[in-house]
Amino acid sequence: MTSGRRLGIDVGGTKCLGVILDDEGEVIEEQRRATPKGPEAIIATLAEMARAMGPWGSIGIGVPGLVTRTGVLRAAPNLVDITNFEVGSLLSSELDTEVHVDNDGTCAAAAEWKTGAARGVNDFVMVTLGTGIGGGVIAGGALIRGANGFTGEIGHMVVDPDGPPCPCGRRGCWERYASGSGLARLAREAAVGRRLERVVNLAGGDAEKVRGEDVQAAAREGDSDALQVIDDFGRWVALGLANLTNILDPEAFVLGGGLAASADLYLSPIQKWFTHLLYAPHLRPHPTLVFAQLGERAGAVGAALLAVVH
Amino acid sequence: MTSGRRLGIDVGGTKCLGVILDDEGEVIEEQRRATPKGPEAIIATLAEMARAMGPWGSIGIGVPGLVTRTGVLRAAPNLVDITNFEVGSLLSSELDTEVHVDNDGTCAAAAEWKTGAARGVNDFVMVTLGTGIGGGVIAGGALIRGANGFTGEIGHMVVDPDGPPCPCGRRGCWERYASGSGLARLAREAAVGRRLERVVNLAGGDAEKVRGEDVQAAAREGDSDALQVIDDFGRWVALGLANLTNILDPEAFVLGGGLAASADLYLSPIQKWFTHLLYAPHLRPHPTLVFAQLGERAGAVGAALLAVVH
Repeated sequence: MTSGRRLGIDVGGTKCLGVILDDEGEVIEEQRRATPKGPEAIIATLAEMARAMGPWGSIGIGVPGLVTRTGVLRAAPNLVDITNFEVGSLLSSELDTEVHVDNDGTCAAAAEWKTGAARGVNDFVMVTLGTGIGGGVIAGGALIRGANGFTGEIGHMVVDPDGPPCPCGRRGCWERYASGSGLARLAREAAVGRRLERVVNLAGGDAEKVRGEDVQAAAREGDSDALQVIDDFGRWVALGLANLTNILDPEAFVLGGGLAASADLYLSPIQKWFTHLLYAPHLRPHPTLVFAQLGERAGAVGAALLAVVH
Repeated sequence: MTSGRRLGIDVGGTKCLGVILDDEGEVIEEQRRATPKGPEAIIATLAEMARAMGPWGSIGIGVPGLVTRTGVLRAAPNLVDITNFEVGSLLSSELDTEVHVDNDGTCAAAAEWKTGAARGVNDFVMVTLGTGIGGGVIAGGALIRGANGFTGEIGHMVVDPDGPPCPCGRRGCWERYASGSGLARLAREAAVGRRLERVVNLAGGDAEKVRGEDVQAAAREGDSDALQVIDDFGRWVALGLANLTNILDPEAFVLGGGLAASADLYLSPIQKWFTHLLYAPHLRPHPTLVFAQLGERAGAVGAALLAVVH
């Protein structure tokens, strides 16, 4: 890596996380802001963060959704009112410097591949479990971008065509089940169908307001209803991982995103269900499930590396 | 390509198709046999075909299912009683020569990439719609094999966890809907639920005996019930293709296998439903759907090329 402070900002559905990397790729500074609504507000926030975190030698942005190779965010269902958002050129004008932009899942994959949990692994899939599910694919020792730069929209793999509606306009996308909002949805459904008393309690008494965090908290107390929701959640995570294994035969999955912080709760249900859902599970090595070493910073670190890793 | 006749045999769920390629990669000879049951009978049939089609300079075999890089077929749900079948070494002993073995979908992908519909395409997915669904992945200009050589088992992507049971032991695999046997199953279900009189008629009057061919024949006569089944079939094909597009962003799909011969019946329903099922369909170029130029010979041609294409 060449010398200089590198800024990377990961724009998530709920927050923007910025990091400065030093010459060795270590994070030496970090800032967060809430992600505002709408393109102008987002550009203003990113510019503000960039100025507050300066000086730096290069800047990269990770954004959720379909990003072209020229830095246009075509669509991002977890950011309200975003279509054909020219993140790269707008922020570049604002800051008067080159801005690298890529999909947040691709950023996370690059970060874990170069400096994290998947160093030296030739075939792996990065799975970021956040508000939605992002992803990135390394296959045959190369970062796979696809024909348009849109590889890795694994959260919109349809796993039940009659499933619940997704903000993307389709039904039964994987992220309706296996993301942070998927966990909350599974919990709300369980709260209506069964009781889920402790979880509803933690959510302030309103079943409609149950969040993933409430389920996690109750599960940590050993609440059996909450543990049942976690098991169901693990089944849905495993279903998508098994599909990706059938398609790509990776050596590993790197699980990142906000939910990775509570990984210990999910790992054993995911592994149990993975064996049930994978094709010919007893006749093949299973991919290892590793957790993003860069934690929720993976996207931001990868964004900072965009200037030097291609 | 070096000089000499190259033999390739594609072992399918119902038949073995063998071809001899000349120096230019053109098919100059072809033979077929029914695929027998059990490993020994299969080896005997392959050896018989190899002798009947000799002399040749190299031999390659395409087999369905999980094939290791050393030519062991770990599992093949469409061939009865096959697990850990050492195709490569058994046939090699029998014929006293080196035998190249790979997954039939990978063979078909290699064939279409080097000599067929996808020459020069850097990102595509081969989808072979036969008794089951096989596949092969070319991404970033490389044939993707995966950590164990098992890439491309796209037929076992689960698209409805509560769906019908699959011979592989799971439920709701894509090939339960979108393969030849999937088409027959959709038709039998429709025949029980509604009437599907013409189709049942073509099947000899027994709704339980309806085959994909009967549906196709009735659809060609303009039978509206049959066309409805074809539309439903097209929706399921499109669902899997949309999932693969979300994951890999290919420039094209190459559709092959036995069903490709009736491609004209399916193409328009597949394209209609693809737009409904793809993430952000209006904001991206759609992959083109092309049909395997090598037709049902793709697997055999690719098998013959295994000796020279890596």
